[in-house]
Amino acid sequence: MTIKAAVHGLGNIGRHVIDCLTCAPDFECLGVIRRESSLGTQMLERRGIPDFASIDKLIAEKGKPDVVVLCGPSRSVPEDARFYLSKGIRTVDSFDVHSEIPELVKMLDDVAKQHNSGCITAAGWDPGTDSVMRTLFEAMAPVGTTFTNFGRGRSMGHSVAARAIPGVADATSITIPIGGGRHSRLVYILPASGASFEKIKKDLAADPYFSHDPLEVREVKTPEEMAAVADNSHGVLMERIGASGRTSNQHLVFDMKIDNPALTSQVLVSCARAITRMGNGCFTLIDVPPVMLLPGDRMQHIARLV
Amino acid sequence: MTIKAAVHGLGNIGRHVIDCLTCAPDFECLGVIRRESSLGTQMLERRGIPDFASIDKLIAEKGKPDVVVLCGPSRSVPEDARFYLSKGIRTVDSFDVHSEIPELVKMLDDVAKQHNSGCITAAGWDPGTDSVMRTLFEAMAPVGTTFTNFGRGRSMGHSVAARAIPGVADATSITIPIGGGRHSRLVYILPASGASFEKIKKDLAADPYFSHDPLEVREVKTPEEMAAVADNSHGVLMERIGASGRTSNQHLVFDMKIDNPALTSQVLVSCARAITRMGNGCFTLIDVPPVMLLPGDRMQHIARLV
Repeated sequence: MTIKAAVHGLGNIGRHVIDCLTCAPDFECLGVIRRESSLGTQMLERRGIPDFASIDKLIAEKGKPDVVVLCGPSRSVPEDARFYLSKGIRTVDSFDVHSEIPELVKMLDDVAKQHNSGCITAAGWDPGTDSVMRTLFEAMAPVGTTFTNFGRGRSMGHSVAARAIPGVADATSITIPIGGGRHSRLVYILPASGASFEKIKKDLAADPYFSHDPLEVREVKTPEEMAAVADNSHGVLMERIGASGRTSNQHLVFDMKIDNPALTSQVLVSCARAITRMGNGCFTLIDVPPVMLLPGDRMQHIARLV
Repeated sequence: MTIKAAVHGLGNIGRHVIDCLTCAPDFECLGVIRRESSLGTQMLERRGIPDFASIDKLIAEKGKPDVVVLCGPSRSVPEDARFYLSKGIRTVDSFDVHSEIPELVKMLDDVAKQHNSGCITAAGWDPGTDSVMRTLFEAMAPVGTTFTNFGRGRSMGHSVAARAIPGVADATSITIPIGGGRHSRLVYILPASGASFEKIKKDLAADPYFSHDPLEVREVKTPEEMAAVADNSHGVLMERIGASGRTSNQHLVFDMKIDNPALTSQVLVSCARAITRMGNGCFTLIDVPPVMLLPGDRMQHIARLV
């Protein structure tokens, strides 16, 4: 059975999702849904996949997809997911505002069940596969502490927050782990013409995104200098030391070094597969039986991986 | 809701399972089922938990358990699980003969469904939580290679195989990783009185358990010398390098250093919780939604761990 998928949005994640869908043995990528004004552009990034200005136009030409992979910004996820679920079309998304996930799960669960559909939300690497690791680590050693140390790598959220400071033309925020699940920030700022770097630095230090962590701010003078520090490398070092029963000194470590949008996109696509196998409702990755993330037959995976 | 559990067998795993059950916030340990000849002994290891010669005697005094944790040897698991499932009682086990798991899953799935019950088999760390890691790693980077490097630690299976060689009074086999998912074996042998160490060494090297890997065999002269090398430390280093979509150089590492029976027992108990939340049939850890392994409320875990 081939799974018919559509891609909503063609940014960094959307392009990587097309890569993952076209590499997978069990997916057909029906098309990309994007702004009318962009239609027909970026042929290379689309790898020959057609684009459409709306889901209705995609359905008219290609039929109904089994799942839509949401590749817009996090802030659009609640409305985008609700929109597709209301049409009875499954979604997956990589919504990443941790504090808003429980509310989003409740909202989307209602919508999905009303329309006999399903979705997996927060399906990236953190939240996402890291969430599974944290859960599994607690199941293995229920008493103890887990530290999630991010980086070194570019934080998309912090970079966007820095760009919102008045006078900032462009910004790149690098997350640097300093141990114990704590981080420092190294922020590269390209000031807008006539803007004061010193003023930006002060505003940045006062911003709630940056005020809680050690901060260093560096000025860059040109877009080229900025481009030279803005790569996609990222990673995490998750450490738990704890006790299984009455036995302490259990050490669990997950250490990952990855291309950030490539991994996020792959997790989205693995979840797009899983949601076609799950019931109605809204799920997160800790609700998903891991074997459902893989293509092919469960018993073969049990023989090969268990 | 308290989960009522019984423990089948009081060896190394059974004692640790009692520790895990009595530390958990949501379990009541009804009792231990064991050989009639052992009844009443090992009060300390039982931590005040009563023992019974049969499940019927336990039920008569304590009521029906929600789940029985099987703590006998792997070779007894198929019959033990079938026995309890046939009475409509859920089981979990840490059956560890990888090649026989698919057949066991099919057999127990039939029995469980016939009697409206459920079980999780192969629920230790390998097979078990390592199986979940291998599955998750493939979902994150579908093309690539995973190496599972065990040790350094004592292999129970290899120690038992070495003890079966004629002339061996006792044996301890240490697994040493040599990279690429390959291992060497360091085997300590206590020869029986009058047995030839050189003959044992030759037989061991020819045994299919040992003939495929680099092997060193050392003679010990006394039970005390043997006891001095037979601790429970173990671990795994699981490494995957692969591609997400068309993006290579994704590095995933899971590194764990643990007390072996303590971790196995904790995974058994987390699975004993999960099986009370799953449907009828036989499952492995890759079939289990990770959140079901933890005590308490799903939405609270989503808020805390996702």
